[in-house]
Amino acid sequence: MDRKRIRELLEAVRRGDTGTDEAVERLARLPFVEVPDARVDTHRALRAGLPEGVYGPGKTAEQIVDIVRALRAESQDVLATRVDAAVADAVCQRLGAGRYDARARTLWFGPEEVAIVGKGVIGVVSAGTADWPVAAEAVSVAERFGNKVEAIADAGVAGLHRLLAASETLRSARILIVVAGMEGALGSVVGGLVDKPVIGVPTSVGYGASFGGLSALLSMLTSCSSNVTVVNIDNGFGAAYVATLINRL
Amino acid sequence: MDRKRIRELLEAVRRGDTGTDEAVERLARLPFVEVPDARVDTHRALRAGLPEGVYGPGKTAEQIVDIVRALRAESQDVLATRVDAAVADAVCQRLGAGRYDARARTLWFGPEEVAIVGKGVIGVVSAGTADWPVAAEAVSVAERFGNKVEAIADAGVAGLHRLLAASETLRSARILIVVAGMEGALGSVVGGLVDKPVIGVPTSVGYGASFGGLSALLSMLTSCSSNVTVVNIDNGFGAAYVATLINRL
Amino acid sequence: MDRKRIRELLEAVRRGDTGTDEAVERLARLPFVEVPDARVDTHRALRAGLPEGVYGPGKTAEQIVDIVRALRAESQDVLATRVDAAVADAVCQRLGAGRYDARARTLWFGPEEVAIVGKGVIGVVSAGTADWPVAAEAVSVAERFGNKVEAIADAGVAGLHRLLAASETLRSARILIVVAGMEGALGSVVGGLVDKPVIGVPTSVGYGASFGGLSALLSMLTSCSSNVTVVNIDNGFGAAYVATLINRL
Amino acid sequence: MDRKRIRELLEAVRRGDTGTDEAVERLARLPFVEVPDARVDTHRALRAGLPEGVYGPGKTAEQIVDIVRALRAESQDVLATRVDAAVADAVCQRLGAGRYDARARTLWFGPEEVAIVGKGVIGVVSAGTADWPVAAEAVSVAERFGNKVEAIADAGVAGLHRLLAASETLRSARILIVVAGMEGALGSVVGGLVDKPVIGVPTSVGYGASFGGLSALLSMLTSCSSNVTVVNIDNGFGAAYVATLINRL
Amino acid sequence: MDRKRIRELLEAVRRGDTGTDEAVERLARLPFVEVPDARVDTHRALRAGLPEGVYGPGKTAEQIVDIVRALRAESQDVLATRVDAAVADAVCQRLGAGRYDARARTLWFGPEEVAIVGKGVIGVVSAGTADWPVAAEAVSVAERFGNKVEAIADAGVAGLHRLLAASETLRSARILIVVAGMEGALGSVVGGLVDKPVIGVPTSVGYGASFGGLSALLSMLTSCSSNVTVVNIDNGFGAAYVATLINRL
Amino acid sequence: MDRKRIRELLEAVRRGDTGTDEAVERLARLPFVEVPDARVDTHRALRAGLPEGVYGPGKTAEQIVDIVRALRAESQDVLATRVDAAVADAVCQRLGAGRYDARARTLWFGPEEVAIVGKGVIGVVSAGTADWPVAAEAVSVAERFGNKVEAIADAGVAGLHRLLAASETLRSARILIVVAGMEGALGSVVGGLVDKPVIGVPTSVGYGASFGGLSALLSMLTSCSSNVTVVNIDNGFGAAYVATLINRL
Amino acid sequence: MDRKRIRELLEAVRRGDTGTDEAVERLARLPFVEVPDARVDTHRALRAGLPEGVYGPGKTAEQIVDIVRALRAESQDVLATRVDAAVADAVCQRLGAGRYDARARTLWFGPEEVAIVGKGVIGVVSAGTADWPVAAEAVSVAERFGNKVEAIADAGVAGLHRLLAASETLRSARILIVVAGMEGALGSVVGGLVDKPVIGVPTSVGYGASFGGLSALLSMLTSCSSNVTVVNIDNGFGAAYVATLINRL
Amino acid sequence: MDRKRIRELLEAVRRGDTGTDEAVERLARLPFVEVPDARVDTHRALRAGLPEGVYGPGKTAEQIVDIVRALRAESQDVLATRVDAAVADAVCQRLGAGRYDARARTLWFGPEEVAIVGKGVIGVVSAGTADWPVAAEAVSVAERFGNKVEAIADAGVAGLHRLLAASETLRSARILIVVAGMEGALGSVVGGLVDKPVIGVPTSVGYGASFGGLSALLSMLTSCSSNVTVVNIDNGFGAAYVATLINRL
Repeated sequence: MDRKRIRELLEAVRRGDTGTDEAVERLARLPFVEVPDARVDTHRALRAGLPEGVYGPGKTAEQIVDIVRALRAESQDVLATRVDAAVADAVCQRLGAGRYDARARTLWFGPEEVAIVGKGVIGVVSAGTADWPVAAEAVSVAERFGNKVEAIADAGVAGLHRLLAASETLRSARILIVVAGMEGALGSVVGGLVDKPVIGVPTSVGYGASFGGLSALLSMLTSCSSNVTVVNIDNGFGAAYVATLINRL
Repeated sequence: MDRKRIRELLEAVRRGDTGTDEAVERLARLPFVEVPDARVDTHRALRAGLPEGVYGPGKTAEQIVDIVRALRAESQDVLATRVDAAVADAVCQRLGAGRYDARARTLWFGPEEVAIVGKGVIGVVSAGTADWPVAAEAVSVAERFGNKVEAIADAGVAGLHRLLAASETLRSARILIVVAGMEGALGSVVGGLVDKPVIGVPTSVGYGASFGGLSALLSMLTSCSSNVTVVNIDNGFGAAYVATLINRL
Repeated sequence: MDRKRIRELLEAVRRGDTGTDEAVERLARLPFVEVPDARVDTHRALRAGLPEGVYGPGKTAEQIVDIVRALRAESQDVLATRVDAAVADAVCQRLGAGRYDARARTLWFGPEEVAIVGKGVIGVVSAGTADWPVAAEAVSVAERFGNKVEAIADAGVAGLHRLLAASETLRSARILIVVAGMEGALGSVVGGLVDKPVIGVPTSVGYGASFGGLSALLSMLTSCSSNVTVVNIDNGFGAAYVATLINRL
Repeated sequence: MDRKRIRELLEAVRRGDTGTDEAVERLARLPFVEVPDARVDTHRALRAGLPEGVYGPGKTAEQIVDIVRALRAESQDVLATRVDAAVADAVCQRLGAGRYDARARTLWFGPEEVAIVGKGVIGVVSAGTADWPVAAEAVSVAERFGNKVEAIADAGVAGLHRLLAASETLRSARILIVVAGMEGALGSVVGGLVDKPVIGVPTSVGYGASFGGLSALLSMLTSCSSNVTVVNIDNGFGAAYVATLINRL
Repeated sequence: MDRKRIRELLEAVRRGDTGTDEAVERLARLPFVEVPDARVDTHRALRAGLPEGVYGPGKTAEQIVDIVRALRAESQDVLATRVDAAVADAVCQRLGAGRYDARARTLWFGPEEVAIVGKGVIGVVSAGTADWPVAAEAVSVAERFGNKVEAIADAGVAGLHRLLAASETLRSARILIVVAGMEGALGSVVGGLVDKPVIGVPTSVGYGASFGGLSALLSMLTSCSSNVTVVNIDNGFGAAYVATLINRL
Repeated sequence: MDRKRIRELLEAVRRGDTGTDEAVERLARLPFVEVPDARVDTHRALRAGLPEGVYGPGKTAEQIVDIVRALRAESQDVLATRVDAAVADAVCQRLGAGRYDARARTLWFGPEEVAIVGKGVIGVVSAGTADWPVAAEAVSVAERFGNKVEAIADAGVAGLHRLLAASETLRSARILIVVAGMEGALGSVVGGLVDKPVIGVPTSVGYGASFGGLSALLSMLTSCSSNVTVVNIDNGFGAAYVATLINRL
Repeated sequence: MDRKRIRELLEAVRRGDTGTDEAVERLARLPFVEVPDARVDTHRALRAGLPEGVYGPGKTAEQIVDIVRALRAESQDVLATRVDAAVADAVCQRLGAGRYDARARTLWFGPEEVAIVGKGVIGVVSAGTADWPVAAEAVSVAERFGNKVEAIADAGVAGLHRLLAASETLRSARILIVVAGMEGALGSVVGGLVDKPVIGVPTSVGYGASFGGLSALLSMLTSCSSNVTVVNIDNGFGAAYVATLINRL
Repeated sequence: MDRKRIRELLEAVRRGDTGTDEAVERLARLPFVEVPDARVDTHRALRAGLPEGVYGPGKTAEQIVDIVRALRAESQDVLATRVDAAVADAVCQRLGAGRYDARARTLWFGPEEVAIVGKGVIGVVSAGTADWPVAAEAVSVAERFGNKVEAIADAGVAGLHRLLAASETLRSARILIVVAGMEGALGSVVGGLVDKPVIGVPTSVGYGASFGGLSALLSMLTSCSSNVTVVNIDNGFGAAYVATLINRL
């Protein structure tokens, strides 16, 4: 998996510096950090030069503290997502560090100002007030991952003029993230207005026939705009993660 | 159910012109015409002054011939929908009458020119080429039911400019029918552009996650435009029927 | 989108009163009011002469207060829906205004007596006691939007005589809203009794195979009565909104 | 399972007429007839005094011939259901016997006139023309199983007067079978008109949101009429079978 | 709907005792009792000679008190179902009457000993401990509605011997109610053991792929035992209601 | 069902030691223990030499105490699953016995050290931290049922190297249990790495399109690895139970 | 993945017999055979000592011929499944070899008599005639994979005595495969009768609410018998594959 | 929408070269080409410098000929997708041009060699033989849209070594398209191996619980690899379209 490491190891075997058994053993080993309740993969983030993401739900303050400590000890920046205010508070107190974004529910351990490494602007468009927490997560993650972000809130298709008012922003972005619940039509509409990759984030906002986000999800998947790809319902993190990868290309 | 008829009957009972038993019997009877395989309701159409609608699928040419004959004998105009070309041909030959609209798959028995009784224009907007048969059914039904119709085809949200190019038409219509498959976003977009009642017709056009029209259906039901109501998937007839009722108000 | 405004602007450009850049800018701008957490569209309501609707769930008392203030400052009437009693109380105290309908859970900011501008009566029929809150929302919205409303409660199809007892009311209404959960059969039954547009509101009332309103929703969508269109589950507001638009035609 | 037989066997063991091993063997054996592709259970029908039912789909003419021969050799009457005309023809030719009902698609091997053993009338009400084949199956099965049947066709709820016209028949029946596709509202409506057990048969008639009968199925299951029970979609046989059992009580 | 009443009315019209207008009015009126939040149908129960059923969920103690009072004033027995202990307590205190069955969650207003009018025994079989509340509701309703009931609890198919141990009871019952969650196989198994009508009550007991009772529901609907009909998930009341109707035939 | 017992009984009948009636009675009787709210099947566990499993949800501490007492009186070991800490505490206090595993939420009544009777090692692989409670249940059950268990936690497919690092363990196991939520891909990946039976346990871990475990469930059912079978969502107990049976073969 | 091969390679590197680059290359290479349209994995089957399975649907006779030739050239036995008679015929003619089982639709290339290597008997129980093709596939695969198989056909739960008649066979089997469509209750019933691993194969047999096998699938997944695991709908091959692996333990 | 054009127009108005009315008219007009059955949008492709895509299903040869002619007249390259061989043949004959790729079912009108404008390689990985048509569509589209493509076929997760054998290719690609049916696990696995954007294309390959691609769709949407976005089932075109946009960044 890591040809350079394998090559070095094989050279060491050839030179006799490393025994066969040890080499077999090392070939099977890959870098991760053990913490009490999880094995934290420091590999991917290191490789990609990204902060490590920690998914908050179901984790206690103690577990987050352990994970963050292990990662910070390796000089890794860490971004925890979907962290409740109370948990964030407890974690920050225990660690004496951390910046909490109450709206996005993200908790950041790293430099206050993140260096911009993304080549262009990531535009984040959200449909309604209720979709904003998911959009805010996308904004927060994209910024902490080193991107310049421009956000357009409350731009639902029922009031198309709001969206058109922001068309300059739409066009100047290199990648767009569209966050919408209910019928999720915003994905198709934005997709039709730009010639950039659009990442659709259906949200669970809505009631009745929105069936917990199913309506927006199916809508975005069957979009008549060919430049739209989709991530899981409410997955602002995932959208920002992919947009970051694209923005570094 | 028909207070006038009940009143006349009661008067006849009072006068002794009608016996109690007979009155009981007649109170339970309501006007319909028996044909071999169906009891045709001539009541509703007569009441509403509308042609009778006959749903084609699952009916043989013979059955349609029987029904049409029964209704024509009562001087009713008849509009059969979803009739295959071959069946239409057989029916027209047998009856020596009938106008077939191959695109809408409707078969009409009535005056060549239908008097316009609807007060305004019904606008029919369809998203893609593949949605057109359903839109064509809506157009054909609305016209045969006495409405002036204006149709805007191929106006999907991925090419919003097409729709905006037709905005004058959208605004001049009294009621709008929006026909769209895939993600069905056109319902919300048109709904946001006008202040008129919009009847959404989700279509089964699409593949994969459109799940036979479910995607467009849920999308229209959860529309963020409050002026959108929805009929069954591919139900161009129903949309035109309701639009006709509204257009006579 | 607003040809008159565009024309005026173009005339100003022609006269040299307005520079090209400014014109480009203004062409992209459309009227809305910014409040801290939402951009409130005052455009649509102004255009349509309707009060502005504010959807309550997920909004704090503070957010509602802000939105209402912004709209009232523009002399707009406001109707907030699905507002809990506690939130309504807090909003009314802060604003020193507002009329709360506990049953419909609507909160009204406008004249005590609303002028009737709808041409006829909107009939609201509901199936069971448990469906009443949704029906009450429809009644409250329709009244505040300037319609005369007649309501028929507890008229489920299992006791058809109750419905028939109200048939005079059914027939005198210009448009009907039918609110029903469980099997939602009331939509078809009322649809079969009248020759008016019927707007079906499936409700989430029921248990087991009603699957949160799915049963009533599918039932109304596949109604054998062609005059029935459908809005989202529990969407009393939407039904009243469309009925209002129709009633003004 | 058959205490009388067990008792006789035990008596035979006590008397020494039957060895232990043989008894063990016989205790495990129960009456059925082996045919090449199926073991035909002659037990249930014999016990219940009913003809044997053979489900046609997926069976070749040869397989049906084998099964019918095996059963007729035991003097059993046989009713095959959902048999295509071509298969029925082939079976009748091979056996030199059999009465085919093309509409109900049933094939009968037994006396031309079946003795009536059911205590009352089974009423079969169907909603639309397209539901009739399922209703016809119910009628045919109920008659061949020894019941007097009265059928009311084409009595959908959109034309309630047709149903009310038949209310005398509805009330005189001892059990009612209601066959309806689309929104299946007929189950609730008939259920509300009578105080008898109603067996609902949802059908796959419909399109779009009827989802192959799901709409009618959920509708009947969530009926607000408490006297409605439901069988599988299109299962006219099952409804008639249960109605027969009830009619013999 | 009530031919005798119609006949009397018509006779009165004939005699001139009743004016036409008044007769029209009375023809449209049917007996029910108005209480503040519901119109209580005293008609059906009176006709069928059954206690009135009141569905508890969503009703306050006050609403139940009002309904019960209205019905008791008409000398009707009343059985409220799915009533929480606290509500039941409040209702009983207010009315100074009522018998609460905590397990079945039914609240009874009527004679302590109900006269048995059902002709045979209704057997109620339930699969697991967790299904018992639904089964208990069925038992309680069936007993209050005048039936002799025998219950077999905890007889799941995974321990078939328990069920077989009760086979004498199964066979002696006139009608069987089978209550089962999870895979709901008990419906088919009991259906295969008896030649009586079996009413299946799928329950929401289970987790994961039982999807709130869907698994048991589909299982019972597709039962290979033809004598099984099905009611809604957890609907012990409905099963007992139908069983009562059958047991009076 | 138990030929040896039947044979002995028959011999006793033959010898005249047992009367026919008594024999009939005993043939219908099978061993179980009655406790107030459940009939506990001591038969299966005795037959299979396994502890008795008690499913905790919906049972009060009192009910669990009763069941455990009844079983312990028969010298049965008992393993209760999905027991909340508070309930476990109450049960242990009442019984003065019991070992609670807070992570697996199992409560054990039996020897501290269970004799290993399984022939090989059962490997339990889980995907993420959040899946661990289900995996822990599988581990606890497998150990209490007499197996040697090796667990590999946090080995999701997104970090394939973690899984490969454990490949020696994977290969040395005789049977594998794979516990994974979200997309459940771990089932296919582990299935492709080993030539042993793999039991997949989809979990309800995830959000949005995981639809309560449906995503992982469908994924495991359609696995392209032919050695994967599946149990219900979150059913760690069932997976361990089957693995135990296989491990004793 | 194959430690022995890696070790040999490393030794060769150490000895200098193999250069580093070549070793890197070879470490990434694993044994498979390239044919025009597929890369055939000969690795797994070789490792496990099993014939190679080829899934027929979607493959032309030519493609199957190519794959079989490639595998036979490596002395592999091949079992193709779900092969239509016409395709099988064409393949056999082209290859001058192959044994086709028309019922199971399997096509075998290997010795006429397969050596039995499984330790015990695999029992295959199927519910109805229509389930037999899936059961036959399971039987054919299990036999060709070196197992002794006993099959019990037509043993549905509606006729429980048939199943009990075969209980000796059920108990003597080491592993059981249960094949059932419709409500799939046979899985739970057989699971309750034996103390062996039971592999449930839900089938798509049924109509209406069986929804293409969903009913049987959910039923088996929620089985109250803890010894049941499940494979995909109609997946007789997979069940036999896993049973084979278990039977070799 | 096109600020440059608007600006020019405004300048022309200012200069008096264009009248206000004409300007209003032109502001509403946007470039498209009318053909008999569709309005072809030449705008987007021109803007983006991409060939025009034509979706084949539901279009006759004549319709495709018309569309292609209209576009070729504007010097546009055209790529028709999902075109049956017979239709392709007819189109090519009529137009005397066109290159058909039978596997991908694409029909190309443009230069034989397309200039490479994408900056890197697009990798297309497909799971099984049956997924190849969808992958081939992605490959064909990506190549015709000016990208260098490398394809890895038959690399399912059940044989992970095949995928690992191609890891060099995986890592050298700039964007990856992963095409997989059944459980769709390949998306997560490839996503975990690379740090590039991965576009998942679930396919409808599979049977039973794959429910027409739903299994793979949900699996990819809930992927534990954060770099995966998803397009509609079988949508090879859409994946290639988005990959093209990304590859030009």
